[in-house]
Amino acid sequence: MPYEFKATRRVEFSDTDMAGIMHYANFFRFMETAEHGFYRSLGFSVAMPETHPRLGWPRVHAECDYKKPLQFDDLVEIQLLVSEKKSKTLSYVFRFRKLNEDPPLEVARGILTIVCVAHHPDGKMTSVPIPPEIAEKIDVAPPELLVVA
Amino acid sequence: MPYEFKATRRVEFSDTDMAGIMHYANFFRFMETAEHGFYRSLGFSVAMPETHPRLGWPRVHAECDYKKPLQFDDLVEIQLLVSEKKSKTLSYVFRFRKLNEDPPLEVARGILTIVCVAHHPDGKMTSVPIPPEIAEKIDVAPPELLVVA
Amino acid sequence: MPYEFKATRRVEFSDTDMAGIMHYANFFRFMETAEHGFYRSLGFSVAMPETHPRLGWPRVHAECDYKKPLQFDDLVEIQLLVSEKKSKTLSYVFRFRKLNEDPPLEVARGILTIVCVAHHPDGKMTSVPIPPEIAEKIDVAPPELLVVA
Amino acid sequence: MPYEFKATRRVEFSDTDMAGIMHYANFFRFMETAEHGFYRSLGFSVAMPETHPRLGWPRVHAECDYKKPLQFDDLVEIQLLVSEKKSKTLSYVFRFRKLNEDPPLEVARGILTIVCVAHHPDGKMTSVPIPPEIAEKIDVAPPELLVVA
Repeated sequence: MPYEFKATRRVEFSDTDMAGIMHYANFFRFMETAEHGFYRSLGFSVAMPETHPRLGWPRVHAECDYKKPLQFDDLVEIQLLVSEKKSKTLSYVFRFRKLNEDPPLEVARGILTIVCVAHHPDGKMTSVPIPPEIAEKIDVAPPELLVVA
Repeated sequence: MPYEFKATRRVEFSDTDMAGIMHYANFFRFMETAEHGFYRSLGFSVAMPETHPRLGWPRVHAECDYKKPLQFDDLVEIQLLVSEKKSKTLSYVFRFRKLNEDPPLEVARGILTIVCVAHHPDGKMTSVPIPPEIAEKIDVAPPELLVVA
Repeated sequence: MPYEFKATRRVEFSDTDMAGIMHYANFFRFMETAEHGFYRSLGFSVAMPETHPRLGWPRVHAECDYKKPLQFDDLVEIQLLVSEKKSKTLSYVFRFRKLNEDPPLEVARGILTIVCVAHHPDGKMTSVPIPPEIAEKIDVAPPELLVVA
Repeated sequence: MPYEFKATRRVEFSDTDMAGIMHYANFFRFMETAEHGFYRSLGFSVAMPETHPRLGWPRVHAECDYKKPLQFDDLVEIQLLVSEKKSKTLSYVFRFRKLNEDPPLEVARGILTIVCVAHHPDGKMTSVPIPPEIAEKIDVAPPELLVVA
């Protein structure tokens, strides 16, 4: 069962800031790119208009450790690893590697915890168990892959 | 009747790019800030969940002429002027002025045309007349204010 | 000589807004993705730290006509066509096509005019002729490609 | 000596995503708004072109705990508290409160650790002690303010 996904992104001009490097908030956009690519690889999407009530996946925790800057035109691999699977939440670890460096250089490491919620007609959200058809497709990565080298 | 609104924004670090100036796409975010401030000043909001069908205001045209760059920490006035009012669309002209310059320096000029649409339950959107309680609150600016100096 | 480039992007969650569609300012980020991909295909980059004085490519005009909305996960082709080449400026036309529709659906059309500038040590910028080694690699698209269908 | 700063921001349309709430990465942009406002209140700016070598303040760690969503037009107070001051790094705690709720509702809590670096002419960055004229203006908040309620 899948516990890993790799997305590749090029750092764009609009991702940079006046310090000449990728703005720190954009690492969180890149994590989400890998997360949604992971779901797509499993055959489902975070946009599920047909479920009743409509499900959503808000974040309850996000963090990032920055080791080296990323620059315009850098090619980045974002590796997603499932680090925890509970009834209502999923946690991911992300490793950012600069591919235009030999060997690829780890530049950042991220963590994301998301919760499955139902959007009710009155605008409220309540946390709900992850639907079994999704949960059963997702496995937790082996501990040795999650250890910080 | 109102045909004008002024918003003030400071250029933030995350608004800049590696050229050291505000990224050109962010001028469009600033126009929208003034546009939504205009609606708020009239007592309504683009988020109108209670209307049936739900109304929306997608853009059909947007443009910007850039004269001088904006930099981090610059204080910017975005002046909105209503340039055209039709049954289903509204057009605005925007003037960006750098306030931390004496006299304030016009750095950019923008145009936006928006259309009133109804969001139908099947996901489709169709253009509809602007509700009279909104249209009657909005006037077109005098031509002399809209002329490019 | 090249006068065309095609980039492909998927609409990401962070590209959308509460209207459920791609935010209108992000079309300008996508245009730039195609523009910079075009330069990369010609063997140069907008980040040219080694030139003295340092060159830059600020925008003097940008516009977009929106025909259909783009949604999360849509696969978009951004076609760049060189529409004008002058001594100091270049103009581009962009066509956005939704590839996950058969036949691909044109959803937006953009225009960008950029100017070549030199960044001087005192922080000033002055417009300068496009370096010949760049200008000679770029051609203007045939008029029939630029006509609005 | 100052150890606190409060910034106020309204959630804009371009801050939201298709889930109808502020996109999670934008909380990090808001933290930076408070951080830079804090520096401005102390009389200095992160943009210090006149220092030799040029100083920068890259982030080494960022995190956020999300409790409640923020929505379009919400008025948010971002309270910055200095939680740690070392020779080369500063850490901040941020509390996000929704002001258009009575009493103001804490919706998120963030952490940021930044390091002072020198940008060398060859493009390299090395961590350096925070300049005394800046360090001496910044105090650490009393522990009781930093405790999670």
